[in-house]
Amino acid sequence: MKLLKSSYLPKGFIASGLHCGLKKSGNPDLALFCSEIPARAACLFTLNKIQAAPITVSRKHLKASGSHQAIIVNSGNANCFTGSRGVSDALGTAGAVADCLGIKSKSVLVSSTGIIGRPLQVDKIKKAIPKLARSLSVKGIKQAKRAILTTDTSTKAFSAKIKISGRAVTICGVAKGSGMISPDMATMLGFIFTDADISKGILAKALKEAVDQSFNCITVDGCMSTNDMVIMLANGLAGNPLINSDKKALSFKKGLSLVCLELAKMIVKDGEGASKFIQIKVSGAKTQGEAKRAGLAVANSNLVKTAIYAANPNFGRIIAACGASGAALDEKKLKVKVSPLKRKGVVIEINLNQGNSSSIIYTSDLTPKYIKINAEYS
Amino acid sequence: MKLLKSSYLPKGFIASGLHCGLKKSGNPDLALFCSEIPARAACLFTLNKIQAAPITVSRKHLKASGSHQAIIVNSGNANCFTGSRGVSDALGTAGAVADCLGIKSKSVLVSSTGIIGRPLQVDKIKKAIPKLARSLSVKGIKQAKRAILTTDTSTKAFSAKIKISGRAVTICGVAKGSGMISPDMATMLGFIFTDADISKGILAKALKEAVDQSFNCITVDGCMSTNDMVIMLANGLAGNPLINSDKKALSFKKGLSLVCLELAKMIVKDGEGASKFIQIKVSGAKTQGEAKRAGLAVANSNLVKTAIYAANPNFGRIIAACGASGAALDEKKLKVKVSPLKRKGVVIEINLNQGNSSSIIYTSDLTPKYIKINAEYS
Repeated sequence: MKLLKSSYLPKGFIASGLHCGLKKSGNPDLALFCSEIPARAACLFTLNKIQAAPITVSRKHLKASGSHQAIIVNSGNANCFTGSRGVSDALGTAGAVADCLGIKSKSVLVSSTGIIGRPLQVDKIKKAIPKLARSLSVKGIKQAKRAILTTDTSTKAFSAKIKISGRAVTICGVAKGSGMISPDMATMLGFIFTDADISKGILAKALKEAVDQSFNCITVDGCMSTNDMVIMLANGLAGNPLINSDKKALSFKKGLSLVCLELAKMIVKDGEGASKFIQIKVSGAKTQGEAKRAGLAVANSNLVKTAIYAANPNFGRIIAACGASGAALDEKKLKVKVSPLKRKGVVIEINLNQGNSSSIIYTSDLTPKYIKINAEYS
Repeated sequence: MKLLKSSYLPKGFIASGLHCGLKKSGNPDLALFCSEIPARAACLFTLNKIQAAPITVSRKHLKASGSHQAIIVNSGNANCFTGSRGVSDALGTAGAVADCLGIKSKSVLVSSTGIIGRPLQVDKIKKAIPKLARSLSVKGIKQAKRAILTTDTSTKAFSAKIKISGRAVTICGVAKGSGMISPDMATMLGFIFTDADISKGILAKALKEAVDQSFNCITVDGCMSTNDMVIMLANGLAGNPLINSDKKALSFKKGLSLVCLELAKMIVKDGEGASKFIQIKVSGAKTQGEAKRAGLAVANSNLVKTAIYAANPNFGRIIAACGASGAALDEKKLKVKVSPLKRKGVVIEINLNQGNSSSIIYTSDLTPKYIKINAEYS
């Protein structure tokens, strides 16, 4: 397997990005990802009970069609809590993309990120779509990955090249993260493309497994978003024999998991105001769910996060968070080990000594900069 | 009912406080509360699975004896995650108090607050107990309420004077709060004294009801402590006819609820780094549990807290937190109203429009000062 800390689009995928006017900064705020031929799609959405209009529309289009070809993404506005107007705006966006590309509206998926509760300036988007469609190219991924960002300070992309039955298969993912990052589910936007020929069922399963161990294991501020989704498109252009069983999917899953995990780590490292990258390795839990629960409780403790920010070895806070998590534990058996706190990467090892399950959670510290960013963001 | 924003000890109660050496600052760190005659006790403890040694010992003494007479409290060290040595230190503390007062060890309750995971310097405590016992007086409450504080910037006391069948009854509570404040349960230390004659069963019920609507409705940082408890002592010296039914307890419950609620609000107002006092009024919930859940989700959202700190009207964050809470809701029916954010007191009204249950949650904002305090605390 060859890994690239970069966006290397698989065969038949093109992308573009530009500034259409949603962001005041002048930075790119509209991205289009496209497969030259219809592709199989797999999607995961936030579990928040408030779900943004683009999620409603993407769900609808996933139901209505067995193949998909384009993803239109805007940043700067979440198009969430915007009522029926929001839904019609998202539908209109998909329709405009479909018209330009000469495809059906239901094969377009829609995604948004940004501020919640404000009407989408959909006219700006519609006006920009023809130019966006004209700019589609392999190199366009460079602008596209910038256009999906909000408070992120860097783009996030990772690619894996694998061999399946002698054929070169590429998996490429781009993501945005930064704040409002917490399970479940997909605590951010992620778009993953592959030229693998893979059945819809196995693709969905592989994506769920990879996301559970990556995007669902990260937290920046414990705040679950209304807009988050991971969309994956597989167009089959690699020409490999169809992957239609778990057994045949082994190396594909390995590659996909790696891409998701690397993107997830990038999101945490670029967490709002983050100065440290923290790995919380929980072992000896009764179940994997409890391992994750304990790890997330520690990761979401403001007291743990501030202690690590300040390299203050106040380990009692880790213990208190474990105890508050509800995971089965026993004070006498609980073991906690923390790596030197002055370093940029911190590892907290927690052995609950109750069973054989484990989990790794990734998080950042809580710094005055997080407050500054979020005090000013609107 | 007469209410006093101060500590006004009921008949037969005395207290004292001094500096025994646990706090480097030289501030008082050891308090003793005492009833001149044996009193009935009611207690509530943290739900954290890690529980401090003083909780273990207090539970033991509550089981072993039907009446209690003294509470010894130290700040500066939580005596938590300190193993069997911690338990023997807490037992030793109770024993030393019992010896000095000429009472049984099992009628002494023990409470600690401070840093977790460090051995208690029990010799300093034992050495100071004779002087502490000699200083017991009605006026001693002034030092006692200072001695239970940690990062608190002010003492917290509230008293209610009520009439029961023509007899004057006093309920007086003192508390400490500040950080690691979150349900359940008692997210702080609270000591409440009354001279009412009240049966143990009704006392326990009244305390549970009052705490559920006060200390269990506040959150500063969503972090559940390992040491928190509310202890109530009732010595019967008011000479009222015994309160042994819910019906007879009506005005007593009213007074107790008020004392608890006022103390709870004081804790939030003095939350670490707090610059605002936020009330989250959730109505229209399917159940009271869901109302509380939604309110706490909003109260614990770092994004909501930073927005309010900055008077930034980013109401989408309130909506996102509601949706993430798991409480039943419908985007189309959800109504959110927020009072002007520039004021020191902020009211967030959320109507879920799903049912008839409601709840009020009290919290503070998240400020750079919270991080400063917790980065440096150890």
